[in-house]
Amino acid sequence: MRFSQYFLPTLREVPAEAQVVSHQLMLRAGMIHQTCSGIYSWLPLGFRVLSKIEKIIAEEQDRIGCHRVLMPTLQPAKLWQESGRYEDYGKEMLRLKDRHDRDMLYGPTHEEVCTDIARHFIKSYKQLPTILYQISWKFRDEIRPRFGVMRGREFLMKDGYSFNCDRDGAVQAYKKIVLSYLRTFERLGVRAVPVRADSGAIGGDLSHEFHIMAETGESEVFYDQSYDALDLNNASFDDISTLYTAADEKHDPNHCPIPLERVRCARGIEVGHVFYFGQKYSKSMGLSVMGKDGQPFFPEMGSYGIGVSRLVAALIEAHHDKDGILWPEAVAPFQVGIVLIKDNPKIREKAEQLYQKLQDGGIETLYDDRTESAGIKFSDMDLIGLPHQILLGENVNKGVFEWKDRRTGARQELSWDALLEKLG
Amino acid sequence: MRFSQYFLPTLREVPAEAQVVSHQLMLRAGMIHQTCSGIYSWLPLGFRVLSKIEKIIAEEQDRIGCHRVLMPTLQPAKLWQESGRYEDYGKEMLRLKDRHDRDMLYGPTHEEVCTDIARHFIKSYKQLPTILYQISWKFRDEIRPRFGVMRGREFLMKDGYSFNCDRDGAVQAYKKIVLSYLRTFERLGVRAVPVRADSGAIGGDLSHEFHIMAETGESEVFYDQSYDALDLNNASFDDISTLYTAADEKHDPNHCPIPLERVRCARGIEVGHVFYFGQKYSKSMGLSVMGKDGQPFFPEMGSYGIGVSRLVAALIEAHHDKDGILWPEAVAPFQVGIVLIKDNPKIREKAEQLYQKLQDGGIETLYDDRTESAGIKFSDMDLIGLPHQILLGENVNKGVFEWKDRRTGARQELSWDALLEKLG
Repeated sequence: MRFSQYFLPTLREVPAEAQVVSHQLMLRAGMIHQTCSGIYSWLPLGFRVLSKIEKIIAEEQDRIGCHRVLMPTLQPAKLWQESGRYEDYGKEMLRLKDRHDRDMLYGPTHEEVCTDIARHFIKSYKQLPTILYQISWKFRDEIRPRFGVMRGREFLMKDGYSFNCDRDGAVQAYKKIVLSYLRTFERLGVRAVPVRADSGAIGGDLSHEFHIMAETGESEVFYDQSYDALDLNNASFDDISTLYTAADEKHDPNHCPIPLERVRCARGIEVGHVFYFGQKYSKSMGLSVMGKDGQPFFPEMGSYGIGVSRLVAALIEAHHDKDGILWPEAVAPFQVGIVLIKDNPKIREKAEQLYQKLQDGGIETLYDDRTESAGIKFSDMDLIGLPHQILLGENVNKGVFEWKDRRTGARQELSWDALLEKLG
Repeated sequence: MRFSQYFLPTLREVPAEAQVVSHQLMLRAGMIHQTCSGIYSWLPLGFRVLSKIEKIIAEEQDRIGCHRVLMPTLQPAKLWQESGRYEDYGKEMLRLKDRHDRDMLYGPTHEEVCTDIARHFIKSYKQLPTILYQISWKFRDEIRPRFGVMRGREFLMKDGYSFNCDRDGAVQAYKKIVLSYLRTFERLGVRAVPVRADSGAIGGDLSHEFHIMAETGESEVFYDQSYDALDLNNASFDDISTLYTAADEKHDPNHCPIPLERVRCARGIEVGHVFYFGQKYSKSMGLSVMGKDGQPFFPEMGSYGIGVSRLVAALIEAHHDKDGILWPEAVAPFQVGIVLIKDNPKIREKAEQLYQKLQDGGIETLYDDRTESAGIKFSDMDLIGLPHQILLGENVNKGVFEWKDRRTGARQELSWDALLEKLG
């Protein structure tokens, strides 16, 4: 992509309305625009990051055999009256009426809609177990939306729903998803800590929250420091769940099961939440399935969420410096940025060639071909945080490319071949 | 994917509530579930098709330099009051109030939101031309939703918005997008006919509708039969726009500019609509940009839509037979289906090997490993319409695979190598 032709409106000043660093940087890097309170439009750079996160989450869900569906944003109130949640849910649920005066709502979550699908199609134990998931926009009418997409009203979420014949199966599904979530976050470039949680409005008896550690996190999390050394690709659920973790209000230094010198205290941002809630919805909504013994039964269910749009902000909170964002490779909007240190026709020609070669090689590249000053181009490139920068000066005529690692600031003069190896 | 583990609830009977063939087939092929009137959930098979269409549309938009964004589903009424459309738009606009009693709406289209983005960021002629597009869910509160996703209330749409300095530029953008749309539909496996149209509620002075031809189309379209022979990858806008096309109400046999024997009459389903409307929104909403001459001006705009969820149904209307769907290769949910003619451990073993090899080769395959009768498996496979079927019988022990072309019904006995070549 050529910067001059892109829609990438960067800002030099920190916008006054943004209190947290991720919100500031998302506005300054031209990633989002506030359409109204708590409701954002995603500009091209922001949309690219959001899509990459979405794709990785979907791949990891597919890998463990979950099936992707897409449920509607608007739901009939009737389904929530059946489950008994319609009256319970507070003003965060956006209620509305259609032209025929039917009560509807903008879904904050989809337990009811998914259970309705299940009761329509799942008739026999032979169709179980199954896990359905979607990645879709939800709405929670927060009284005071803030922190940009961190606590917006319209937000993108991955939500999944498991259906099993019995409690054992449901717990297995739950454990499988917890492990998958940890691998998912690892792929996104962060380690998340699973913290045992109350199950709240969803109800049920087993629940974990997933927290990303960042100085600016919204709450304190305590956990066994040996968790940081765990190999999540080979860990079992028990390896993880036997390690001590606790949310702020649950941690009591006087009754901590591990030595206090092993406890790490950090600030966390919640990016996922999973629940096992048994037959709460299958019973209330009449999802009844024929068992092996010829007797009908109510399947055991769980639900599993990841805050996708929130993750964009959370990743920035975890990965930034004073100059801007430090995107993990997997979610970077482009892998490589090309900047001219000096601007003359010869160097431009080399830049064009380099840009074409990288494009042809399938390496996502942003070429800053604007006629702005070098200073502005350097600071914009640092701000938007692409992992690799290639700086072109006079040396390029001798076949030397200056490569800069955005994260470490390390620079190296490389030949073309060495450069390609670095970017491969 | 193994059928036994998939969520693919096929139906033998034609559902009574479905009047048109695409709606019947989408229900029978387990692609969708009606959550409430005009509002559907997309089940795994349906979601796969929807995603493939979305991906192709996005690729073609990116190819011509449009920039992908994502605007919110909910919009503040204020923006529509500025453009003057808030009162004009009838009951099809879903109006609602948030918890602070602010007037909002579920966007049926995004001219206002996109113009708001533009006026916030586009300050100089140097930032023009630009085209922003999104693929997102919209809502139109149809009084009588019907025909499944063909005329649903919540629907997926690609909508784009062009911004140019002057009329010439805007018309160039318009022409570029018309050509791109025709290539997009061609990639999706259908030829669309562009028909000059009134611009209706959007306003403006240049507009085309795009119709896919299908016996069950909603309206009659008349067009020069030489259009069918045109090479759309090399045609210019003039090549296309000089050919005679007319909607039903505009065609007058007594005043037709071409000989009547060259006129084809067919039924069409509208799947796209483009508008050039000049300064309608830039003026009313104050999108004012500094010109080269130092004077501010109002950019010229156009908007461009493709009905993405509707296309799923339209493609089925255009491609089906009495046994089910005939997916064009590019949008098929899987490329290949494996069915056992005879079910015994030896043939199952071969089927497993074949399935693994195809999966490893990156060929999307649905393996019907259920213990249903061969008859049920054949009819389900025909119903869901994968382009290639591989039927495994006793011959497979001799290394012979029976391949069936779903569209033509042609069958061939092939060796492994010949089979792979066929599927490659």
